[in-house]
Amino acid sequence: MRHTLIPQQYYRTIGTHPIALTIQDGDEVAISCVDAHGIDGNDQAVTLPGNPMSGPIAVTGIIVGDVLAVTFENLVPLRTQGWSYPTLAGNVVDPEYIASVPFAPGSKLPKEYWDLDTAAGVVRSRGTHGMVVTAPYRPMVGCFGVAPARGEAISTATSGQHGGNMDVRFFGVGCTVYLPVAVDGALFYAGDAHFVQGCGEIGGTGVESAMRVDVRLAKAPMQSIAWPRAEDADFLYTVGNARPLDQALQHATSEMHRLLIECGADATSAAVLMSQLIEYNIGNVFDPAFTVVAKIAKQVLSQHGLRSTFR
Amino acid sequence: MRHTLIPQQYYRTIGTHPIALTIQDGDEVAISCVDAHGIDGNDQAVTLPGNPMSGPIAVTGIIVGDVLAVTFENLVPLRTQGWSYPTLAGNVVDPEYIASVPFAPGSKLPKEYWDLDTAAGVVRSRGTHGMVVTAPYRPMVGCFGVAPARGEAISTATSGQHGGNMDVRFFGVGCTVYLPVAVDGALFYAGDAHFVQGCGEIGGTGVESAMRVDVRLAKAPMQSIAWPRAEDADFLYTVGNARPLDQALQHATSEMHRLLIECGADATSAAVLMSQLIEYNIGNVFDPAFTVVAKIAKQVLSQHGLRSTFR
Amino acid sequence: MRHTLIPQQYYRTIGTHPIALTIQDGDEVAISCVDAHGIDGNDQAVTLPGNPMSGPIAVTGIIVGDVLAVTFENLVPLRTQGWSYPTLAGNVVDPEYIASVPFAPGSKLPKEYWDLDTAAGVVRSRGTHGMVVTAPYRPMVGCFGVAPARGEAISTATSGQHGGNMDVRFFGVGCTVYLPVAVDGALFYAGDAHFVQGCGEIGGTGVESAMRVDVRLAKAPMQSIAWPRAEDADFLYTVGNARPLDQALQHATSEMHRLLIECGADATSAAVLMSQLIEYNIGNVFDPAFTVVAKIAKQVLSQHGLRSTFR
Amino acid sequence: MRHTLIPQQYYRTIGTHPIALTIQDGDEVAISCVDAHGIDGNDQAVTLPGNPMSGPIAVTGIIVGDVLAVTFENLVPLRTQGWSYPTLAGNVVDPEYIASVPFAPGSKLPKEYWDLDTAAGVVRSRGTHGMVVTAPYRPMVGCFGVAPARGEAISTATSGQHGGNMDVRFFGVGCTVYLPVAVDGALFYAGDAHFVQGCGEIGGTGVESAMRVDVRLAKAPMQSIAWPRAEDADFLYTVGNARPLDQALQHATSEMHRLLIECGADATSAAVLMSQLIEYNIGNVFDPAFTVVAKIAKQVLSQHGLRSTFR
Repeated sequence: MRHTLIPQQYYRTIGTHPIALTIQDGDEVAISCVDAHGIDGNDQAVTLPGNPMSGPIAVTGIIVGDVLAVTFENLVPLRTQGWSYPTLAGNVVDPEYIASVPFAPGSKLPKEYWDLDTAAGVVRSRGTHGMVVTAPYRPMVGCFGVAPARGEAISTATSGQHGGNMDVRFFGVGCTVYLPVAVDGALFYAGDAHFVQGCGEIGGTGVESAMRVDVRLAKAPMQSIAWPRAEDADFLYTVGNARPLDQALQHATSEMHRLLIECGADATSAAVLMSQLIEYNIGNVFDPAFTVVAKIAKQVLSQHGLRSTFR
Repeated sequence: MRHTLIPQQYYRTIGTHPIALTIQDGDEVAISCVDAHGIDGNDQAVTLPGNPMSGPIAVTGIIVGDVLAVTFENLVPLRTQGWSYPTLAGNVVDPEYIASVPFAPGSKLPKEYWDLDTAAGVVRSRGTHGMVVTAPYRPMVGCFGVAPARGEAISTATSGQHGGNMDVRFFGVGCTVYLPVAVDGALFYAGDAHFVQGCGEIGGTGVESAMRVDVRLAKAPMQSIAWPRAEDADFLYTVGNARPLDQALQHATSEMHRLLIECGADATSAAVLMSQLIEYNIGNVFDPAFTVVAKIAKQVLSQHGLRSTFR
Repeated sequence: MRHTLIPQQYYRTIGTHPIALTIQDGDEVAISCVDAHGIDGNDQAVTLPGNPMSGPIAVTGIIVGDVLAVTFENLVPLRTQGWSYPTLAGNVVDPEYIASVPFAPGSKLPKEYWDLDTAAGVVRSRGTHGMVVTAPYRPMVGCFGVAPARGEAISTATSGQHGGNMDVRFFGVGCTVYLPVAVDGALFYAGDAHFVQGCGEIGGTGVESAMRVDVRLAKAPMQSIAWPRAEDADFLYTVGNARPLDQALQHATSEMHRLLIECGADATSAAVLMSQLIEYNIGNVFDPAFTVVAKIAKQVLSQHGLRSTFR
Repeated sequence: MRHTLIPQQYYRTIGTHPIALTIQDGDEVAISCVDAHGIDGNDQAVTLPGNPMSGPIAVTGIIVGDVLAVTFENLVPLRTQGWSYPTLAGNVVDPEYIASVPFAPGSKLPKEYWDLDTAAGVVRSRGTHGMVVTAPYRPMVGCFGVAPARGEAISTATSGQHGGNMDVRFFGVGCTVYLPVAVDGALFYAGDAHFVQGCGEIGGTGVESAMRVDVRLAKAPMQSIAWPRAEDADFLYTVGNARPLDQALQHATSEMHRLLIECGADATSAAVLMSQLIEYNIGNVFDPAFTVVAKIAKQVLSQHGLRSTFR
């Protein structure tokens, strides 16, 4: 079944808030999302800035310890214009280089606006601060997740085992993300969509816009997990969210070892496969918590007689 | 001109050691390299383990402050067999997960041997410790660099501004790596070649073998640099070597901003391009120092009227 | 005025929960606190483990942007026995040393019990796991804080700008801790008291017991602050809570520079004083977030004509 | 026997350089040391800046795997004036706070000069940049160590298992530091003395001066060690040198556990003692490598029937 969620209220934490919509396992929801500053498809500020979330959506029959499969079916822009900040974050450059970065970190910055050219498949900056920059249109969802354990309500500025502001570039159409469920019903939230974004969200913004995020939410045929996992057509992924990056990498790597064992590998063979065939990507490095993604090709898994999908 | 270097002596530090070969700017050298344990193409241990280096090669006319362009022209296996350790390093998994990893970190491990099948373009493990694993043959040079400043002699177990044990997967044929020259003649070293290696060298080894590393060494048309840079057919790269990963990322990101300015961008536009179009890769995360690579597509640069090559 | 708080309900997050007690600015409260496992003075488990908090206490007239002064007037043991775990946390030793640590991290551990000898001023372990260990009785409050901004409810396993599980050894009788107020009324919580604890809480526990925590809560004559500050008879302190330790140290150091300017120093002189006279302590290094404390002697400040107290 | 070393040559790396002086096990040497900028007791620049070292001193009969005991017998100022930089390092404050720090990191700074008043036991800044600051005269040796393994020559800007630029405040008169010997004869170096210094050397300098460093060098009655250890009248110490601070703390903590076992504790009791009675100090946080010191009171050890000295 297909639902629509146009929120009456937005949240800047992911927690156990009053349910906005209840659906059945496997249903699809078209979620209307404002941008990171709370601005909607009509350029109206309808809520406070700071990655306001649409949700929570409860999924009947999904309980604590289950894994929620979030499949991004479609991402539809709700306006043709997005914005970004024309700088780099202070923490992504050397301390002694900060003075060289345009617009001191923390200063009140003027936004750079970008226009979406759907026909050409690109976004173009207006060049207010320098060059007109053209980038491919690669829509993605920056922040989404499920209610965490022990009653926490976690700021949407950060991320954790529950998901959150991971800003992983390929969390877009065709990707399924697996999240560990900590409360009955899972309580899913989404927001902070981008037209495009570089690795790390190192300027603190992608090209931010309001979008409709169409997701299918279902119980995954997967054992209890500690950290988010994902898959698309070609890869299986595991995700660690922490600071420093070293610890995020430890989470993603431990989770990949567990995943490969769940795919049928023995512990040693899983280590050998990972040593020679794993790749890493970097998600958000601007947040309080950073994101590292480990990935392995599905072809590698099937070639070695291992399970390669959970869809 | 083309030279051959078959070392009489190997070094486990990169420093100002007695010159093994002197060449002209732009010459090519076929460098015979033993594997990380000092074992040569005839399976003989000819020097101590620990990433022994072949070199140093002095390049006439290259002086302090210049940039050395190291182009990998060819990588030729000197034997058909390589080896790896069938484990994961203690520092790449969660502390509480270490007990789950096969073969406790630091224990004396039996090696896993792999055979090179050049016709099929793959390497195959012998499955001593579990599954027979097949991986693509993607030869690369794990450790190379130039003599550092102030008379330092830096262990080949680690990396720094001078290069060193970076273990970047795409530092192979067709890639040009740019290194900051700290002593006259540059004093180039290479070794620690791999048949294949996953991101991070998270087991502490790629598939280690003796190889002939054919490089062309030339002065680059590039201003003084702080950290290694690189390019291949499709991308420009910058490299940071440090621990934690966060600092390696800061080095790579600062260097990318400087590089884009050298390519013709103003400081703000460089920041905008990076925010929306950069990608990161992770090199060695097993060393004392870790490696992060920032990359940007050459096509992006030329499309915006910027310089896109230094070859 | 003096109040008593014996909670009907405990919380494992610090957030905007229903107010348990409302007091006037400057009032004192005797707060009954269970131990980290929810066990009270009669050895009864009255709530779930995980640093359950007593509170929240609202202070009339204190509003967002104010600073709350929390003075620990007295700490009274509610039983004569405490407990700890006889191990070291996995993250405080080298990864390759973890196998050497007794009781693998994450394993189900038997507790070590300790008896309080008030006359001798010591606590003594029962030696179940080895030696009988005697340590001085130095009671302190491991976890306390005020409701954070934007509606967050932060787990009492961690710490932040709001305070939380800082485990600073000298947060005991005679110490005043200053916390940034993010919601009207401040909403103060406390719990997780220790009979004694080493720097870092590196075993994951101090000697845990139920205690009565007597605090005076008042508005501090201090400008808006970003991170906790503190003072006792001899020192002014600033506190950073983050991971890695490097970032916690950055927070504490930045806050100390702001504090010294508030005490009357110019920015340069503040830097000179800090360079030559500051000391650092380490609080919790077991949590998701770590704690670093910067301190400077009050005598140094008064000797240089600077303000040296905010009490 | 007592020797004098007035160097003809200084080194900015600690490595296997030509021996400047050979002594017997247990001999004392009065080592003339220039300041961190190579300026001697007559205000003459006699060598390049960058922590130039006096040495190496070879100790007959000390071999690889031994432990060298370095006892600081006396520190004698060679001039009555010292200098420092009036700023804070970029990496010790929050990235967004860097703009608030006087004198941008990396800028060419004017020095602040300080005068030593031996009678009063203080040093006084001249107040060129702000207040006249008075600090106690607490002389210490910032950088010293022994030649590292595998032929490395390590910059005196950093630190490691061999010692180096640790900048620990209490490495002064009355302290014995234990260093792991990696080459026969140990090859000891010293320099970079300070009249006083705050924890962390967070401005990048203590009060830098030329000093005579009187040391006794002897073989310690101690098993092979991985990281520096130390003792003074009241405490035993272990030292970790690495970045980030978290890793330096891991080294110091693992070494303390090994030390307590060498003092006679079983592994579990060592963990219990450490959990409740250890303290941490922070050394250099300005270097490429940071320093964390773990300490435990000798009284605690003797009270529990454990060895408490290696002198």
